[in-house]
Amino acid sequence: MTSLEDLPIRDDLRGRTPYGAPQQAVPVALNVNENTHPIPEDVAHDVVARVAAAILTLNRYPDREFTELRRALADYLGHGLDPAQIWAANGSNEVLQHILQAYGGPGRTALGFAPTYSMYGLLASGTGTEWITAGRDEEFELSAATAVAAVRAHDPDIVLLCAPNNPTGTPLSLETIEAVADAARGIVVVDEAYFEFADPGSQSALTLLAGRPRLLVSRTMSKAFAFAGARVGYLAGDPAAIDALRLVRLPYHLSALTQAAALGALAHSVEMLSMVDEIRAQRERISTELGRLGFHPYRSGSNFVLFGGVDDPGAVFGQLLARGILIREIGIPGHLRVTAGTEAETTAFLEAIAVSAPNRMAS
Amino acid sequence: MTSLEDLPIRDDLRGRTPYGAPQQAVPVALNVNENTHPIPEDVAHDVVARVAAAILTLNRYPDREFTELRRALADYLGHGLDPAQIWAANGSNEVLQHILQAYGGPGRTALGFAPTYSMYGLLASGTGTEWITAGRDEEFELSAATAVAAVRAHDPDIVLLCAPNNPTGTPLSLETIEAVADAARGIVVVDEAYFEFADPGSQSALTLLAGRPRLLVSRTMSKAFAFAGARVGYLAGDPAAIDALRLVRLPYHLSALTQAAALGALAHSVEMLSMVDEIRAQRERISTELGRLGFHPYRSGSNFVLFGGVDDPGAVFGQLLARGILIREIGIPGHLRVTAGTEAETTAFLEAIAVSAPNRMAS
Repeated sequence: MTSLEDLPIRDDLRGRTPYGAPQQAVPVALNVNENTHPIPEDVAHDVVARVAAAILTLNRYPDREFTELRRALADYLGHGLDPAQIWAANGSNEVLQHILQAYGGPGRTALGFAPTYSMYGLLASGTGTEWITAGRDEEFELSAATAVAAVRAHDPDIVLLCAPNNPTGTPLSLETIEAVADAARGIVVVDEAYFEFADPGSQSALTLLAGRPRLLVSRTMSKAFAFAGARVGYLAGDPAAIDALRLVRLPYHLSALTQAAALGALAHSVEMLSMVDEIRAQRERISTELGRLGFHPYRSGSNFVLFGGVDDPGAVFGQLLARGILIREIGIPGHLRVTAGTEAETTAFLEAIAVSAPNRMAS
Repeated sequence: MTSLEDLPIRDDLRGRTPYGAPQQAVPVALNVNENTHPIPEDVAHDVVARVAAAILTLNRYPDREFTELRRALADYLGHGLDPAQIWAANGSNEVLQHILQAYGGPGRTALGFAPTYSMYGLLASGTGTEWITAGRDEEFELSAATAVAAVRAHDPDIVLLCAPNNPTGTPLSLETIEAVADAARGIVVVDEAYFEFADPGSQSALTLLAGRPRLLVSRTMSKAFAFAGARVGYLAGDPAAIDALRLVRLPYHLSALTQAAALGALAHSVEMLSMVDEIRAQRERISTELGRLGFHPYRSGSNFVLFGGVDDPGAVFGQLLARGILIREIGIPGHLRVTAGTEAETTAFLEAIAVSAPNRMAS
């Protein structure tokens, strides 16, 4: 039997294993920061109707420029954005890949602040871009001074700011983003995948776009919009910066089904986002409760909570899994990450982890 | 206003324009080799039902390993293929991109036989792979001797064989494919995007897979399956060669909608492919009629015909467009390419082009 070692794969791929959270069917899956609330029924009906209409012409290639979807995404984001300032792709990973293909590549560098989203390094490697990481402040925060010092030290072609940060949940101040955008020579990407879960009143990096053609703000429909299965990520930026991505995308990269489904969800954005308040409430409940149990939860502006103070993360992970609850080991010693689910899922998680808690206040 | 020139795009992208057949709404679009027959109504209903079911869990990430789809594709291809020998992605362009990412990259080369599918060069460039082209024999044919001589001369890491070839339509003999597979040191990809349109009795490169772990055969649902809008390409090869692609694909690259829709179409493959005979008949009609009109049509095993003997391709293209018929200028002097449409579309094309024919036998 042929093995991978017998095949002429790229040298830097040798010995690697593919990205992947375990795919396990469990009653309570709180491991990949999905929105655990299904799409509301009336929205689902509208999405089906739009997809059904798209199937009538599915023998034809889709609109390569996803004109209608661009308009809908611009309307949703607001801030006076024009459709020419919008890009979209199959998940924000593909959006980021397009950015790295257009502005990175061999001989160029991308900088991030670890621990951060693990796909950044893989996407950089996949496009031949050198991936550089700098550190964070106490409690995984990132001050303007710390970020700017790293930008000055490494002079990267691309800076990737995850705001709020995954896997730590840490919100990122507009002050830090602005300071990085002003200090950096190259492209600055603010990945706002979890922005809709930020505390009310939080300001998006979209407010900084005017006059900054090298600043790009990415979003996703996977999280707040409960649309992870549909794979829709998007981006706002200067029309010229967006135009560059047309040079590297695969033609017709967004299927007619994807475009139709996304338009259906966006037509109901108010209803789709009504779950966000409830998820934020569960996140706060998790933070409060984990703190009371003697763990160390970090400040979160997302739909998940990173917590430290776990003596044996692997053992806790296993104990929860045995009770049908899947959370995430993210490779930080003594830490685990949990997604804020529905009230019932959150209760199940909190009851189960109480058993392993430092303060052992099991219910 | 910022222009692309003001932005730090990759040096090799400067001055480029994006790939793109013109997107024009015309009554008779025969320009991008789509299947112009819509999906049969009963199949469309089943596809909608499956997509509707997928929407119920669209808040969750899709099956990263598209397990069910792999099984259905293996069943469709036959030849005793196992699901572990199947890969799929958003269109065969993405399948080819995964191959180039895994087996190509900086310092590596990919060889093709020009004129061939224009995306090969763009995909190579996008992955930092050097793109090399060798020539063809008379009438755009490719003999084993010619192909093997080029493989020996260039010693490429990847060979891309388009069978039948786009934009010429030329069938490729199993003898040539076998000779290339045996002569090449690296990966040999046989792109069978149009294989279902080959003359009855033609043999697929799938028959050569056994014992050749470096041979990969790609297909698409865009053409014979009339599924261009859904973006589904796939691949068969050795399980280890397929496994390497998991190192470079983006996680969850195939949406739940795509997987559900493709499963729906594959469940009706006999009916979906019943259009193929009719399209092949129209292709033969085009070839016969263009020859009679004094043009020079080339041998085609696909759903399109390349023809020479056109004094002024731009003028003919324009005359047809003025009558609502869109065909394709593919950059070969004196040549044009037309897709075989429905009987009515084919009639419209043949009547319109008769006016510009060398023999001027206008109807």
